[in-house]
Order: sequence, then C-alpha cells, then structure tokens
Amino acid sequence: MFVGTVIGSVWATQKEVGMENLKLMIIQPIDWKENESGQTVVAADRIGAGIGEKVIVSRGNPARNLFLNKQIPVDAVIVGIVDSFEVHDVSK
Amino acid sequence: MFVGTVIGSVWATQKEVGMENLKLMIIQPIDWKENESGQTVVAADRIGAGIGEKVIVSRGNPARNLFLNKQIPVDAVIVGIVDSFEVHDVSK
Amino acid sequence: MFVGTVIGSVWATQKEVGMENLKLMIIQPIDWKENESGQTVVAADRIGAGIGEKVIVSRGNPARNLFLNKQIPVDAVIVGIVDSFEVHDVSK
Amino acid sequence: MFVGTVIGSVWATQKEVGMENLKLMIIQPIDWKENESGQTVVAADRIGAGIGEKVIVSRGNPARNLFLNKQIPVDAVIVGIVDSFEVHDVSK
Amino acid sequence: MFVGTVIGSVWATQKEVGMENLKLMIIQPIDWKENESGQTVVAADRIGAGIGEKVIVSRGNPARNLFLNKQIPVDAVIVGIVDSFEVHDVSK
Repeated sequence: MFVGTVIGSVWATQKEVGMENLKLMIIQPIDWKENESGQTVVAADRIGAGIGEKVIVSRGNPARNLFLNKQIPVDAVIVGIVDSFEVHDVSK
Repeated sequence: MFVGTVIGSVWATQKEVGMENLKLMIIQPIDWKENESGQTVVAADRIGAGIGEKVIVSRGNPARNLFLNKQIPVDAVIVGIVDSFEVHDVSK
Repeated sequence: MFVGTVIGSVWATQKEVGMENLKLMIIQPIDWKENESGQTVVAADRIGAGIGEKVIVSRGNPARNLFLNKQIPVDAVIVGIVDSFEVHDVSK
Repeated sequence: MFVGTVIGSVWATQKEVGMENLKLMIIQPIDWKENESGQTVVAADRIGAGIGEKVIVSRGNPARNLFLNKQIPVDAVIVGIVDSFEVHDVSK
Repeated sequence: MFVGTVIGSVWATQKEVGMENLKLMIIQPIDWKENESGQTVVAADRIGAGIGEKVIVSRGNPARNLFLNKQIPVDAVIVGIVDSFEVHDVSK
C-alpha cells in the first residue's frame, strides 16, 4: 500500500462492464516529508474520501477482491483515510 | 488505474492463444498537467477508444478477469473513456 | 521481496472491510549500502516489527494470501525481521 | 503489455520445476521513437520470435495463465510479433 | 523475469507463517552490459544458487505458485541459474 493525497476525481460515461457506480479519485503518492513522489493513481473510493485528504491505497488483486463480483476490473482502491501518522528519523 | 492518452495502435499476425480479435491500443500515461509521464502501455480496447482520447487503463489480473476465458493473456485493458476530470492544487 | 527500515506507522479510523485490527507500518526500502532506495511502502505487520528495525516485505497476492479471509485488501506484509545479512562485492 | 525488441536469449541448465523446454528471450522495451526505455525483461516465447523483431510482451498472472499447468513459474510471455504500428502526435 | 547477480543472503528468526526453511538470497538486477540496473530483490532459492552467480528471477503470483501450500508469502523465486546468454546489438 502507499499513502497519497486525493487531488481530484475523474468521470467516464463510456466504460467497461463492472465500472458502473464507482467513484474514481485521483491520488498523488507522497513521501514522508509530504513531497509528491511518483505517478498519480486512479483508485475506486467506497469510504468517502474528500479532496485534500490523505489516504491509504491498495493495488492489484488484493484491492480487486473487495468486490465480490470478480469481473470488476478495478486495480486500485482507497482502503483507509489517514487520521495520523508518525515517522521517525532512523538514518542515524 | 492510470489515465493516459491513446496515441496509436499495434498489429500482430503471429500471436499467442487468446490474442485473436483484440484491438490493441498504445497509451501514453499523463500527469495532471497533461505532461507525458512514464512508459507507454499496450492495452486491449473493447469500448471504442479513439486516437487522442483520454482513457482510464487497468492492469494485471483485475483487467484480465474481464475475459471469461481465463487463458486470454492480456495484462492491461481500457476500462473507461474520460469525459472530464477535476484536479485541485492541494499542496498549500 | 525487498528489505527496508521501519520508519513509522499510520492510523485510519474510516476504512474498508477487512482493514480492522491491522497494524500498518511505514517502510523505507534500502539498498545494501543502506541508503534509501525507492518510494516508501505501507505494510501490515503481524510479527511485531519495531521502529528502526530492518524487515523483509512481500507484496501483491502472495502477501495477501496470508490472510485466510480473501477479502482483506492488503497488498504488502512484513514477512520477516532481519537478524543479519551478508553482501559481497561481486562487481570485479 | 509493452512493446520491445528481442535482443537475445538466455540458457539455464539448473532450474525450477516447470522451466523445462522453455525458450527464454531477452527483451528491451522501447518507446515510440524506438529508443530504449526501461529495464530488459526475460520472457518465454512459444510463437517463434527472432532476434531484432519487435514483440508484444504480457506480464504477471495473465501471462502465466497461458500454461495450463499452474506451477510453471513464468511471469512474462511474448504474446505477439508486431507486424506494424501507427503512432500519432497528439500533444498539440 | 529478469536476470541478476546473487550478491548476498539475508536471515530472519522472527517471521511470518510459511517463511520457515527458506533460503533467501539478495539479487542485484543487471542490464546486458552487466551494469547494475534497478533496486535489489530478495528471492527464495531452492536450486542452490551461489554468491556471484547470474540467475533468472520470477516474481508475483507465478513465482508463489511453485509452492503447493498457498500460504507461503513469497513474491520472488530464483527459477534458473544462467549458463550463458547471447545479446545482439539491434539498434542499427
């Protein structure tokens, strides 16, 4: 999983089977100095994440398996909204 | 999933089992300033995406599971054609 | 798998099904000169890893399969706490 | 999937179960200006790709599922030999 | 799959279910000019690879499926010890 900031959302009318009624958010992964880090990811959201919130995103089959219908072609899901995190400088 | 622009298509006569009758498009991932971002991906298209359109691409097993025949060796599928997206600057 | 240092932990109250009672640690992958290498990963920990410890992290379906309940959407798990490692300079 | 050029092949006598009688080719991913792009990949070839040919490579479980015997530990397969491709400049 | 050089090994006493009795080697991926290329990977070894040897590594579910017990959380396995490889300069 990775932590990122929700920066937006995306809409599609023409889509594949199983993509109906999904809220798709755009996530910018961040590092722990809260800088942008790596490419943005589009993830399905079923827990009500809002713009600007930090979220935990899971990818691949583990994320897809949340949907009982195995034909939902979703490869990334927001699995938690971050309340807090604690990071230590262990480089010394 | 990621968002990219359809920049072309690719044809192959000699191919593996399960690759027959698939339309294969070349996708350039983009970031939200719409710059190119990362390596191009070849994805199967069953929803009629055209050159220059922005699409949502899903990868890995979640994408492959769209095909009921489990032997189709496709690891990327266009799952939506982008109507619109909204991105906020949350860095402040 | 990869080796990284546990640098912190993250908490979420609002979360997906299957994410209850999981301890989520933040891992910084390292190379063998022990420099930081690549993006941080959030991994579930069931073996009691502490801040500053070096751990082995497994990802994707192999990691998820540790949980008998297939709907736990975890894509990274700490699978070992490193006791020692030995690296040789084989470049000559 | 991605497109790359077959640049060589690799042989191994001592190997895991399921790796017998596989032709393993070395693929250099390319971008659409045909420059090298990203790390080389070792992929199984069952369709007769030759050195210098452009091929489509699929990865992960979708690729592995081509083999009915589920214990073949192959994570990349050549799924097509490119006849032609067409790329448009959509950046304007 | 990718080719890398075995540069070391790593030991863990405290570990997850299914990680017992596994020999874990550290692999440095290489390119075909035999330069280091990308982050090191920890892979299980069941075929007796030694320090300094070039090996083929497979990742993800295809690698995990080598283990009949589906709860072994291994996401990378050495699947072959390289005898020889042949690379052509196809850039012209």
